[in-house]
Amino acid sequence: MQEFGFNPIGVVESPYKEKFGTPRQPGLVQGAEGAVVLRPDLNADALEGLSEFSHAWLVFVFHKSEQSSVKTKVHPPRLVGKAIGVFATRSPHRPNNIGLSLVKIVRVEGRRLVVQGLDLIEGTPVLDIKPYLPAVEAIADAKSGWTGTADAAAEENATVVEWTKEALNDLDKTAAVATLKSAIEDIIKLDPRPVAYRGNSGNPNPYTATYGFRHGQWNVVFKRLDDNQVSVLRVEPWPNSGQDG
Amino acid sequence: MQEFGFNPIGVVESPYKEKFGTPRQPGLVQGAEGAVVLRPDLNADALEGLSEFSHAWLVFVFHKSEQSSVKTKVHPPRLVGKAIGVFATRSPHRPNNIGLSLVKIVRVEGRRLVVQGLDLIEGTPVLDIKPYLPAVEAIADAKSGWTGTADAAAEENATVVEWTKEALNDLDKTAAVATLKSAIEDIIKLDPRPVAYRGNSGNPNPYTATYGFRHGQWNVVFKRLDDNQVSVLRVEPWPNSGQDG
Repeated sequence: MQEFGFNPIGVVESPYKEKFGTPRQPGLVQGAEGAVVLRPDLNADALEGLSEFSHAWLVFVFHKSEQSSVKTKVHPPRLVGKAIGVFATRSPHRPNNIGLSLVKIVRVEGRRLVVQGLDLIEGTPVLDIKPYLPAVEAIADAKSGWTGTADAAAEENATVVEWTKEALNDLDKTAAVATLKSAIEDIIKLDPRPVAYRGNSGNPNPYTATYGFRHGQWNVVFKRLDDNQVSVLRVEPWPNSGQDG
Repeated sequence: MQEFGFNPIGVVESPYKEKFGTPRQPGLVQGAEGAVVLRPDLNADALEGLSEFSHAWLVFVFHKSEQSSVKTKVHPPRLVGKAIGVFATRSPHRPNNIGLSLVKIVRVEGRRLVVQGLDLIEGTPVLDIKPYLPAVEAIADAKSGWTGTADAAAEENATVVEWTKEALNDLDKTAAVATLKSAIEDIIKLDPRPVAYRGNSGNPNPYTATYGFRHGQWNVVFKRLDDNQVSVLRVEPWPNSGQDG
């Protein structure tokens, strides 16, 4: 079948600088603000009228997900080991590494669309922006398949996040303390650790060391106390990040 | 910027055989049933688990929309003459001719995903199938921008569809009369005529001739009586369509 080629219309500016610590689902971390910046040859008027909508779809490329071969079954982290058909998941490892993410529109600034609820990594190529149409796309009673069960299980085993005095002290030095604190807690509750680092019932807690992830210009260092408890140890400036976050 | 290439994962089987008479928005014509058929080298287990969801996203290519040049402002039919930023619309004429359509899942049959509420033309290349996630994607109170105003105006000027005795007689010869009748009425109410054939206030009804559009194995012939009234004249078998609809 014919191949179709697409040039990105722009790129993402995001507080998430690396895969580790980037939420896996759109809208889960409400606090994260970022932007889509149109490429220079696209006129800013392409965004005209978009700020009258509250939400938009981003069609993007999972550019960090290499595809060695096309697997038709995948293991979503939330299903812990169980495999499922790739088209029944939002996994980045799919025949075409195209992603779809719903974001909240904050404002339009020239060729920048500022958004909230971003789950994309810095530099993500964006193929399209489309307005969200609640009249046809808000289906509250839709059946959510395996994700409904997984979400309920996750809620039952919700992680408690503790902050050390040192970490709270670090936070006090930053602006927008409350937003940053809740964003970090949300990310940790979703467990940013790759599946391979999580252990399983036969081999619990294989790594008891501390973990770190980058959020904006911060390096967040945390430690897992038990299956449901995490302690945030430090929130350090990311080396040489300057004002890019 | 780097170009990304994608091979379709499959194609659409649809009752809509041509652009004229194909609804412009997903979910508007609930009756239309169709399918996505995976390409032969993709294992059927890629669809496993999808039938536990009620709705799915189709990411597809508007393969009938030639792109001579990239326009950043477009004229959506519902805005009758007014231009708006292309990213504030779902127009097929966009920098990347990628479409997004929400469909109802009917069932999975091997490598076929049978769906309802299809607004895609026969042979549409599909790039991806993704489950609809109501927990994050059903936002009932989202602001619908210009489309909300346009929808309200359309409702106020809703078209009345009349059926001639001959057309009703034609319908009686088909199976599933009620479904077909309501599907045809829905399509006509959305005005399948290209904008150029609609006239405007300075030149009303430039074409008073009858129109026809193909729906499945049927050719529907109708006539516009006035701005708000349409008469269905005949529902004829499409020449040589056989059982493909």
